[in-house]
Amino acid sequence: MDRYDELMSLSVRKGFIWPTADLYGGFAGFYDYGHNGALMKRRLEDLWIDYFLHLGEDYYLIDTTSILPEASLKASGHVEHFTDILVTCTKCGENCRADHLLEEATKKSYEGIPPQEIDKLLAEHKIRCPKCKGAFAPSKPFHMMFPLMVGPMGKDPAYLRPETAQGVYINFKREFEALRRHLPLGLAIVGRAFRNEISPRQGTYRMREFIQAELQIFFNPKTFDSSIAFDDVQSSELLVARADKKDQGGADRATCSELVKSGLPLFYVYHLAKVQDFFLKELAVPADRFRFAELGEGERAFYNRIHFDMEVKQDSLGGFKEIGGVHYRGDHDLTGHQNTSKVSQTVTIDGETFIPHVLELSFGIDRMFWALLDAKYEKVKTEKGERYVLHLPPKIAPTQVAVLPLLGKDGLPEKAMPIYEQLAKEFKCFYDEGGSIGRRYARMDEIGTPYCVTIDHQTLQDGTVTIRERDTAAQKRPASSELGPIIGKLLSGQAKFESLP
Amino acid sequence: MDRYDELMSLSVRKGFIWPTADLYGGFAGFYDYGHNGALMKRRLEDLWIDYFLHLGEDYYLIDTTSILPEASLKASGHVEHFTDILVTCTKCGENCRADHLLEEATKKSYEGIPPQEIDKLLAEHKIRCPKCKGAFAPSKPFHMMFPLMVGPMGKDPAYLRPETAQGVYINFKREFEALRRHLPLGLAIVGRAFRNEISPRQGTYRMREFIQAELQIFFNPKTFDSSIAFDDVQSSELLVARADKKDQGGADRATCSELVKSGLPLFYVYHLAKVQDFFLKELAVPADRFRFAELGEGERAFYNRIHFDMEVKQDSLGGFKEIGGVHYRGDHDLTGHQNTSKVSQTVTIDGETFIPHVLELSFGIDRMFWALLDAKYEKVKTEKGERYVLHLPPKIAPTQVAVLPLLGKDGLPEKAMPIYEQLAKEFKCFYDEGGSIGRRYARMDEIGTPYCVTIDHQTLQDGTVTIRERDTAAQKRPASSELGPIIGKLLSGQAKFESLP
Repeated sequence: MDRYDELMSLSVRKGFIWPTADLYGGFAGFYDYGHNGALMKRRLEDLWIDYFLHLGEDYYLIDTTSILPEASLKASGHVEHFTDILVTCTKCGENCRADHLLEEATKKSYEGIPPQEIDKLLAEHKIRCPKCKGAFAPSKPFHMMFPLMVGPMGKDPAYLRPETAQGVYINFKREFEALRRHLPLGLAIVGRAFRNEISPRQGTYRMREFIQAELQIFFNPKTFDSSIAFDDVQSSELLVARADKKDQGGADRATCSELVKSGLPLFYVYHLAKVQDFFLKELAVPADRFRFAELGEGERAFYNRIHFDMEVKQDSLGGFKEIGGVHYRGDHDLTGHQNTSKVSQTVTIDGETFIPHVLELSFGIDRMFWALLDAKYEKVKTEKGERYVLHLPPKIAPTQVAVLPLLGKDGLPEKAMPIYEQLAKEFKCFYDEGGSIGRRYARMDEIGTPYCVTIDHQTLQDGTVTIRERDTAAQKRPASSELGPIIGKLLSGQAKFESLP
Repeated sequence: MDRYDELMSLSVRKGFIWPTADLYGGFAGFYDYGHNGALMKRRLEDLWIDYFLHLGEDYYLIDTTSILPEASLKASGHVEHFTDILVTCTKCGENCRADHLLEEATKKSYEGIPPQEIDKLLAEHKIRCPKCKGAFAPSKPFHMMFPLMVGPMGKDPAYLRPETAQGVYINFKREFEALRRHLPLGLAIVGRAFRNEISPRQGTYRMREFIQAELQIFFNPKTFDSSIAFDDVQSSELLVARADKKDQGGADRATCSELVKSGLPLFYVYHLAKVQDFFLKELAVPADRFRFAELGEGERAFYNRIHFDMEVKQDSLGGFKEIGGVHYRGDHDLTGHQNTSKVSQTVTIDGETFIPHVLELSFGIDRMFWALLDAKYEKVKTEKGERYVLHLPPKIAPTQVAVLPLLGKDGLPEKAMPIYEQLAKEFKCFYDEGGSIGRRYARMDEIGTPYCVTIDHQTLQDGTVTIRERDTAAQKRPASSELGPIIGKLLSGQAKFESLP
């Protein structure tokens, strides 16, 4: 079984994620979160919110609608430009994204390639239908937004949003006023976005409905650098693949100071470092599995002045894959909305009137979710054979503590239940008395539960219980009355398991 | 200014909720949450999740897609039946919901009225266009789901979900297996739903995109009652308007025991009591502002065997308004999916094979949000005049603690900042040094911040600070080093402000 199948099997068995409407033969490009997945995803979102809204003083979460009126997406350029190039097989009717076909054939990136060059390149590389080897009809642009008609006479054209960002931009002026006219101002949305992908593939990687977490930072380009605490990060090392070296597979370590010297703006490099910290420190992704990949001028969207993707190496997806991006969008979006709405988007601060610039930190929640399963699910060799462990950071594990009576008799469940009830007030707990203790530990290891508490015959005599750590399978034996504080400290990182008495 | 306008003004000024795409002249039936609203809404969702998933041992959150394939909504009956009756003015083109016109004219409920009776009734009551007094064209059914075409050739018909419930039903069998075949099994979704309402009105009350929190409880109808801890609730009093008395405006107090004696199933009454507890104890809605209203046989959906709406009295909306419902759906949904998908939805437990029944607890998050603003925003008379206070329960207040240096000089901000940074690690805090202290208190009162901490000249001398309670404006003076534990206890309800030394 390859790594992708192994993870999908774990995911379906344990209720992390599975294809939508499986009951009706599935629905390509859509996935549902099961009981463990939904909890882990909500925790991951909470962690993201907590971390990124602390990057600035005036950084806030907002929440806006999935359906947007056409005018707002005309202003952003999506109605005109949000297309992919579609090619259709003349023999079997298979639809493919032209840039993906070229990438597979040549192992180069064709993101942002001009449509008029596509047919020539497909012919040059003799690319035919991957399913039936038939010839392709001439390529054509395919619009990726889902259109809707709103109202009883269908008179209000609208779309499902293709990104959360526009919901922030059209609210900027209102929030700027309500928040008493400060810059930098950060506004974040965690929510669903929708794209009618031509060929959804690689499971959760390219979905038609997906969850984004995006922070838009509005700032004055003349003064932003001077407000940044660059000292905090200047010697941090980042793993970066620059645009000119990327196709050779090159990624180099560089300090933040070096990146600024190479010509990147100070505020931009600072945020790269903060994003890397999130992956390495908060999500505990191994340092060699996270990197930034720069998009060159031809690859990035025309409105992005600087664009580095965040990439996590995932064996299930064949290597480094994009999880999100850091986009310096300049004043493109607010200018677009100002031109279309005829409502001024300028601000006046200290006598200067200008349209704020935007730095966007954009993350795919589903992609992070999958990358964590990929990075954290491991077969561990033990004396007795092997065990499967999902080494999730405790903050995002769906269950934090399992309470397990050694046997379902001898008064052990009666002793275990009050302990469970007490712990459940404070932590996300799971009680289980079914099957051998070894099987129950194995179940908890596989869903990433950091700690198991076992009630045995000795508990009846002296009130102590065993507490077992997921990652090492090591055990300690505290009094059950001390469990709450101990587990609280372990989960928050204030105590280490090996230092427990 | 009437109550609705007063609340909408608060809401827009303070970033709670406002019309979507205001920049483009608005978008009827859609609202965005601002920086205070998004936080409060997420807290409200967390509180709901925490409370309702604790009603049973095997109760879990899942998360499913907004877009569903047509087959799943054919099975549920939505494709065929999810319509309202539309009448259009022959003169000005205004579109109206026929049942609403009849309700306004007669003050009776016409929910679920057969379409063939509509035109007769409209003529009988001489109802004409509310805008121009023109005559209506014959009524016709209007489909309320938003259709979509998925895939590059638009070959997969789909809809935006009109309720979250179907996402649970199509996942039931998978979760039942993954969760090791226990009943009762509770599966909840908190997420968006979409209805193309004919005439969205009353602000956030009838929206085209809205957020539901729904818990589906799957159970064995032969054994569910006996597993219920009815003793806990039997003497609880509920305020209930029965179907036969509702039109006379009657609502009576009855104990749970009395309701069971009147013929309602024990499990159903138990859940009414738990729902009421959520509103009265967790959200602190005054007891005389919450009631259940039964829907009679003609009013409720044909698949609901028993249906009581939850209603909260809202001055801004003219009285008691529906917030959600408790729906005994029987085996309607799983049977529908079994018939359409040809996949068995039966379970076998203790030798008995059956299709589980469903009890649905369904809540509108936006409606609860608005009802809380309505119930909690108050003008309070003081010695100096009056102040406006949003008496939110601390658990859902967007900001928990404000840290305010008395002046922006004399070293007070320098003393206040470390206190803020310390508290911000544990609580949602806000730091503010702008304007007079009275104005800053007033701002915090209006967004429902339960506690303000003020740093003054005495702090520089003896390290004490003032802590001020929102609801009473009373103040105490603890040492700043004790603030963390004190605020923690106040917020969790473990300590009372008046008992502080």
